[in-house]
Amino acid sequence: MTRQRQPISQISRLAHRASGTTAANRMVPEETPVAFSFAGTTHAVMMASPADFEDFALGFSLTEGIIAAPEEIEAIEVEDLGAGIDIQIRLRDKANTRFQARRRRLAGPVGCGLCGIESIEEAMRSVDAVGASKLTLGAEDIACSVKLLSKVQPLHTETGAVHAAGFYVPGKGIVMAREDVGRHNALDKLAGALAKAGIAGESGAVVVTSRVSVEMVQKTAAIGAAIIIAVSAPTSLAIRTAEDAGMTLVALVRGDDFDIFTHQERVVCGVAKHVA
Amino acid sequence: MTRQRQPISQISRLAHRASGTTAANRMVPEETPVAFSFAGTTHAVMMASPADFEDFALGFSLTEGIIAAPEEIEAIEVEDLGAGIDIQIRLRDKANTRFQARRRRLAGPVGCGLCGIESIEEAMRSVDAVGASKLTLGAEDIACSVKLLSKVQPLHTETGAVHAAGFYVPGKGIVMAREDVGRHNALDKLAGALAKAGIAGESGAVVVTSRVSVEMVQKTAAIGAAIIIAVSAPTSLAIRTAEDAGMTLVALVRGDDFDIFTHQERVVCGVAKHVA
Repeated sequence: MTRQRQPISQISRLAHRASGTTAANRMVPEETPVAFSFAGTTHAVMMASPADFEDFALGFSLTEGIIAAPEEIEAIEVEDLGAGIDIQIRLRDKANTRFQARRRRLAGPVGCGLCGIESIEEAMRSVDAVGASKLTLGAEDIACSVKLLSKVQPLHTETGAVHAAGFYVPGKGIVMAREDVGRHNALDKLAGALAKAGIAGESGAVVVTSRVSVEMVQKTAAIGAAIIIAVSAPTSLAIRTAEDAGMTLVALVRGDDFDIFTHQERVVCGVAKHVA
Repeated sequence: MTRQRQPISQISRLAHRASGTTAANRMVPEETPVAFSFAGTTHAVMMASPADFEDFALGFSLTEGIIAAPEEIEAIEVEDLGAGIDIQIRLRDKANTRFQARRRRLAGPVGCGLCGIESIEEAMRSVDAVGASKLTLGAEDIACSVKLLSKVQPLHTETGAVHAAGFYVPGKGIVMAREDVGRHNALDKLAGALAKAGIAGESGAVVVTSRVSVEMVQKTAAIGAAIIIAVSAPTSLAIRTAEDAGMTLVALVRGDDFDIFTHQERVVCGVAKHVA
């Protein structure tokens, strides 16, 4: 397959309005199955925006703990199979050995045979603590980070239906951003792009347009960022996980207003007087 | 574990507003790993709202094509393991044989060994055609279905952060609804509740508060409904899949306005004159 995939496409639909019903064009996001294979075997299939595949593969490998550093990947091969994208990731010696051992440990005698408790423990895997980070933000940084992210969301601007994840560094603004129909995928693509550019997670905050589920906290910790800022609400499990990891979780950012759910000590300047 | 799980919980956070920063309570959704095991082996783990587990198990089994009818399930056992919920689903003879054959076909020599193309084909599995359905809706049904669904979302009313899926029958309103932090889970729980109540999917429309990804169309087709109505936008793949399945896809419902993306012939009365 040689056709160039686009992350958005134009379709025609009937728009029913009080003034009448008209056939009109609209941009909608594409969604494509992306299969990740490590050591020759498929590990996961995600429905994702067909773009930034190498960032996605590198970021997923990092945030899922399959590799500890980009150097552990020997090669990433992206093949368009028509029905979807096949990404083969070849790991170097140590990472390959570690991955095979993990697979053997997880695979039971039949098929994907995890027992319930193992599967749940895998989903709830422990999160790297980020408590050592000295980064602090002012209230204006938080409002600003979301406003700046909204300016670098070309797919969302066209469709109104795509998530974004960005990386905000005080004094520099949003230094990197990625978009995807899936919020986890956007964050994985950001993780890969940051790693490729050699930008340390400790130097800034992760900013997402979505809600904060526990996986968003797990992936932010894997990036090494101590602050996550979200437009929408967190889950209770995400809050507990951020609290335990020493991560500052700020959410429900609306203009200049926002809520701080955990580790408020990193939000310092410009926060209005605390009326307890 | 005997503690009663609640799908939402109260937390305290700092609310930063122009008028000052105050510590105040807020309700947030819970999120819990739920592991589904069939024939003794875990098939999938989902992060879900801890509620309606039996609806979830029955609905997931139906919409994922593991069973063809509720009678194929012999027993559903729900166990709270503390870290998550383990749901063991025992299948009756034919369904069990079919499931084991599918597992053997999918499981390669190592671990979860699907090759990329098999994994992608599994994700893109063909959808049951719903074209035979004679159900039609008027424009007022569409606006009404979303308004009525919003009145039966107790978790969303409290948290502002939970999806809902409802079933709308013309002349009866929303006859069933379920909520979950995950949009797929809300739809699976609805599917299970409908099956348990003996409500035929052909008799109404699925109404969701979320975006429409391809899985939402696949699951709606498995329910047997020929119409899906969504508050947010569809993906391009969801549109193509609905078109091919003969399903009417209505989305971006805002008050009385909405967009019809596929099979407009089922939307009949009260649609303003078509200005082509």
